Amino acid sequence: MSDLALHNYFRSSTSVRVRAALNLKGLRYDYVGISLLAGEQHQAEHLALNPSGAVPTLVTGQGPLSQSLAILEWLDEEHPEPPLLPADAWGRARVRSLAYIGAQDVHPVNNLRVLQHLEAEFGADVFGKAAWFAHWASAGMAALETRLAQEPETGDFCHGDCVGLADLCLYAQVLNNARFGVDMTPYPIIQRIYANCMDIPALERAAPVNQPDAF
Amino acid sequence: MSDLALHNYFRSSTSVRVRAALNLKGLRYDYVGISLLAGEQHQAEHLALNPSGAVPTLVTGQGPLSQSLAILEWLDEEHPEPPLLPADAWGRARVRSLAYIGAQDVHPVNNLRVLQHLEAEFGADVFGKAAWFAHWASAGMAALETRLAQEPETGDFCHGDCVGLADLCLYAQVLNNARFGVDMTPYPIIQRIYANCMDIPALERAAPVNQPDAF
Repeated sequence: MSDLALHNYFRSSTSVRVRAALNLKGLRYDYVGISLLAGEQHQAEHLALNPSGAVPTLVTGQGPLSQSLAILEWLDEEHPEPPLLPADAWGRARVRSLAYIGAQDVHPVNNLRVLQHLEAEFGADVFGKAAWFAHWASAGMAALETRLAQEPETGDFCHGDCVGLADLCLYAQVLNNARFGVDMTPYPIIQRIYANCMDIPALERAAPVNQPDAF
Repeated sequence: MSDLALHNYFRSSTSVRVRAALNLKGLRYDYVGISLLAGEQHQAEHLALNPSGAVPTLVTGQGPLSQSLAILEWLDEEHPEPPLLPADAWGRARVRSLAYIGAQDVHPVNNLRVLQHLEAEFGADVFGKAAWFAHWASAGMAALETRLAQEPETGDFCHGDCVGLADLCLYAQVLNNARFGVDMTPYPIIQRIYANCMDIPALERAAPVNQPDAF
């Protein structure tokens, strides 16, 4: 029994980010699988923890905390080592700005529930949903690649040579892109950083395929 | 001439959040209007500042900074008074979590470019786009209202009796909801906080109708 319990889903990219951060910081947590496909996020027991009916939710000694980026910031404040954000304010601003390209511009529009709603309201089939996903993913990857290419702070990872918040979001997004067959060849820097992420055991262990509810 | 220039659009709710924060902190800035309807966000001059082709971008002495939430966090670090986040880590986590319901679950899915893409790809007409908007806005408002009702930290604003990050996101979202005719009657706490926001001159001045590019 751990002090932390993560209510999450193996394939959810917001869950990937949080698992990666917990692993990086060496924090043990209980894994509680919430099947989004089975609709478990809408059950009363889950809604009591997270009225948004979404994952992940981190249950802590102080209460439940939802929204993956809020969880990441809290983990970084409470468990500063290794840091997810740089020591200087402008560096933090840059890293958050890079992270949010994937976390705000791409992921929310490509969420499972959005794809399901596209099907229900507009009759989008599997090809229509894949094209929708690729449209937003490609736009976000192109913007991110351009910034990583132009900005001198880019190193082995998005900001210098240490993994951080922007990398966790990049890592989760690229894993998700692969599921939907997004062509990543135009984004060599993102691919290089993704490979560097995969070389970190804490991140590799956070991948969907390595979770107990994976199928 | 100010040290800060905000490239933004009067109606953009992410721009509203940032204008409100600049005003609250008493920071002067040059207003640079970028017409999203005219496609000015895709022009080379703008893409050089923000490769995502989005607003807002805050041009600072250290360089351009994009992504509204990254801008808000940076402003709060560089200009701490009045604070947008509480002094305690758990309070900060709660405020970010509340803020992101609107900023991540609702707004990105209802962005102008998403509505335009819905029309282009699936033939959504004005009614289909309004229904799409209301679907996600209502889901987010319901989750936010439930949390504000359940959690004892709620006060005149989302977290106690001082305006902060979550309120700026709430304020911008409710303004946007009004444009699309979202029924707000089920959300009395959100309406009360919105009214309290409107009573703050710094926020009222950030509203779309009060901008130089408003039409």
